[in-house]
Amino acid sequence: MTGSENAPSSKKSDSFKLAHDHCTEGDLPQGFRFAGVTCGIKPSGKPDLSLIVSDRPVVAAGVYTQNKIVAAPVVLSRGRTPSEMIRAVVTNSGNANACTGDQGMQDATEMCDIVAEMVGCQSENVLVMSTGIIGKHLPMDCIRTGIRDAHQQVEPSLAGFLRSAEAIRTTDKNRKTVTAQIDVGQRKFRVAAMAKGAGMIAPNMATMLSCMLTDAPLTPEMAQASLSGAAQTSFNRVSVDGHTSTNDTLLLMSSGQGTPLNPSELKNFQRELTEVAVQLAKQLVADGEGALHVMAIRIEGAADESAAETIARTVAASPLVKTAVTGSDPNWGRIVSAAGYANAEIAPEKISLQICGTTIYRDGAPVPFDEPALSTKMKANAEVTIVLRVGEGSGTVEYWSSDLTTSYVEFNSEYTT
Amino acid sequence: MTGSENAPSSKKSDSFKLAHDHCTEGDLPQGFRFAGVTCGIKPSGKPDLSLIVSDRPVVAAGVYTQNKIVAAPVVLSRGRTPSEMIRAVVTNSGNANACTGDQGMQDATEMCDIVAEMVGCQSENVLVMSTGIIGKHLPMDCIRTGIRDAHQQVEPSLAGFLRSAEAIRTTDKNRKTVTAQIDVGQRKFRVAAMAKGAGMIAPNMATMLSCMLTDAPLTPEMAQASLSGAAQTSFNRVSVDGHTSTNDTLLLMSSGQGTPLNPSELKNFQRELTEVAVQLAKQLVADGEGALHVMAIRIEGAADESAAETIARTVAASPLVKTAVTGSDPNWGRIVSAAGYANAEIAPEKISLQICGTTIYRDGAPVPFDEPALSTKMKANAEVTIVLRVGEGSGTVEYWSSDLTTSYVEFNSEYTT
Repeated sequence: MTGSENAPSSKKSDSFKLAHDHCTEGDLPQGFRFAGVTCGIKPSGKPDLSLIVSDRPVVAAGVYTQNKIVAAPVVLSRGRTPSEMIRAVVTNSGNANACTGDQGMQDATEMCDIVAEMVGCQSENVLVMSTGIIGKHLPMDCIRTGIRDAHQQVEPSLAGFLRSAEAIRTTDKNRKTVTAQIDVGQRKFRVAAMAKGAGMIAPNMATMLSCMLTDAPLTPEMAQASLSGAAQTSFNRVSVDGHTSTNDTLLLMSSGQGTPLNPSELKNFQRELTEVAVQLAKQLVADGEGALHVMAIRIEGAADESAAETIARTVAASPLVKTAVTGSDPNWGRIVSAAGYANAEIAPEKISLQICGTTIYRDGAPVPFDEPALSTKMKANAEVTIVLRVGEGSGTVEYWSSDLTTSYVEFNSEYTT
Repeated sequence: MTGSENAPSSKKSDSFKLAHDHCTEGDLPQGFRFAGVTCGIKPSGKPDLSLIVSDRPVVAAGVYTQNKIVAAPVVLSRGRTPSEMIRAVVTNSGNANACTGDQGMQDATEMCDIVAEMVGCQSENVLVMSTGIIGKHLPMDCIRTGIRDAHQQVEPSLAGFLRSAEAIRTTDKNRKTVTAQIDVGQRKFRVAAMAKGAGMIAPNMATMLSCMLTDAPLTPEMAQASLSGAAQTSFNRVSVDGHTSTNDTLLLMSSGQGTPLNPSELKNFQRELTEVAVQLAKQLVADGEGALHVMAIRIEGAADESAAETIARTVAASPLVKTAVTGSDPNWGRIVSAAGYANAEIAPEKISLQICGTTIYRDGAPVPFDEPALSTKMKANAEVTIVLRVGEGSGTVEYWSSDLTTSYVEFNSEYTT
């Protein structure tokens, strides 16, 4: 996308808006209105209900949790995407409406019913997301009032967008947003996206919710393919604690009119959408509970991309690797041995490893390096890069995770449901 | 085995010797001599070299790490089992001889050469194990002297056996041993076993080493089958942090003479050997770094045993589940959702969960329970039992893990290589 920090310099522009929460009004896709309100689900009194309304029926796609136990809102939304008739997304935080049985399904349905009545559409054309405590029924009185309040407040502004992003937070330290202009060829479009979560989020578990909006004209099939593709190399390549929630939901809505993207434009669109998703995903990891460092893990030379991903996931999940990064310890033994027990082929005699740009293991053997200097560098860097070559194959992936600190353990052991 | 705490009462006897480190001279299989000495590998000056010698060639079998990066001693020992010509096992702690290249292979070979010369056998008839720091060459001067010292001290006594068990420790708080008499039918035999490790062990990683000795007469094939079978439902069903080391080694040696076990006796032998292995495995978990509780996880009703094991491993590895147990929080949401993302089929509407005997989730929905009372019970119990029914299949397993504490994180992040 235009101005991404990661983009080649030829693509840089003054309109770069990817830094955390540095969003601009001009990058907001037209056709959407936003609100975020406090309806009283959260005891803290913080915002807990978000509403996004489109001016007319729009294209929408979704990617949902792989957990076999899914919350009621996931069941509803999953059955409604892809679509070209969506008019709104309503999201509550503070209560996940998960493991809530028939009542939970009724409540999720009612949330959509109320929104549909307000915006004047069928209930089936409303999507719903929930996040927060599980096993408790939604406080529907609050929610009924909240939806009506939100509907009165929706506005097509950046302020509204940010309030909406605020209202989907649970234990996130920061709200997570990205806006960007994207250049798909001759035509330029806009993307605005918000997310919450990662790590296990209080009170009971992690939930990753994200809603991406664009004005690029897409068919439902194009939206679904782009979103699934983007998720594959962004949200599906981050982990904090590996605990997949019952509520994870990623939505894409397009208000774009006119001729749908041609194949070349679509390819560019997906690449740019993926970059936006990566930026959001990295915000999630950086906000992992108790995290001191983001671990940016690059696996090279695996048999194929799938093998590379398996190795990356294994390294990222290892408590030994995580705690080494926490302690700024360039501990190649923990990293190399984690690759060794991943369920993918590696060539032990070809393994090489760099941490923060310093080679500490090459062709299957440790190499001398200035350990105190590298440790100091790891300590100073918010993002610790780990580049691990495991053979001579073509499989390469990038993966992001967070380290493991005593704060994480304290937060998750001292909290009582 | 006779007197196991878990055995039906009809099998109890006064000779029960399974409690931690409560071993008796009479349960030691004949034909083995033991020593444990300090040779100077460990800066602490603690014992770091163990030698077990058999009076004549014996049957031996081995089960080794699944890590694709294996230490030199694993390469050697793995190539030498099963066998009926083994005369000795030499083990050093303090240095894993892993990621040490050709020099490492030479050093491991030399360890066997020295033992062979002392004992009067071929080097190929000696097994070797190492555990400790990786990526550093063995201090062979110490080891040469240490092996000679150990050989002068070997004795066929419980004291020698315990010294040997002591010398294989790394960061283990306790040495881990089990002795037992086992009743395979008309005949009775003895088993003595030692182990070290689990969790990631300082300085660099976990290593699980175990050596089991018996006087039951076995062919090499019978020894291998019994050991592999026993490992499957004991050492392969425990985890602390899921990090498989480069050095894990489990050996079984039999000094038994006379008619090998008949099929019925062999079946009984394997069951008893498995129980000994389970006792050792539980000692490993209980000594997991920083562990406050052992989590004893029983999965019932899975499609088959393999599915049950996948679910158990996933629940056991979840940092959310571990920290809930740390905090004595009967958090069914974390446990049930971990089962939901395990790579195995479950029937969400059939899920039931008991913690420490109290049902808190039944047929897919939470049930009311006295939460403070259950939390108090969890806090008081060293072993927190989790019984999770995931459907109506026949797959059942038991699995053991430890909780995750700030001590674990501190230990593994503050330590610097």
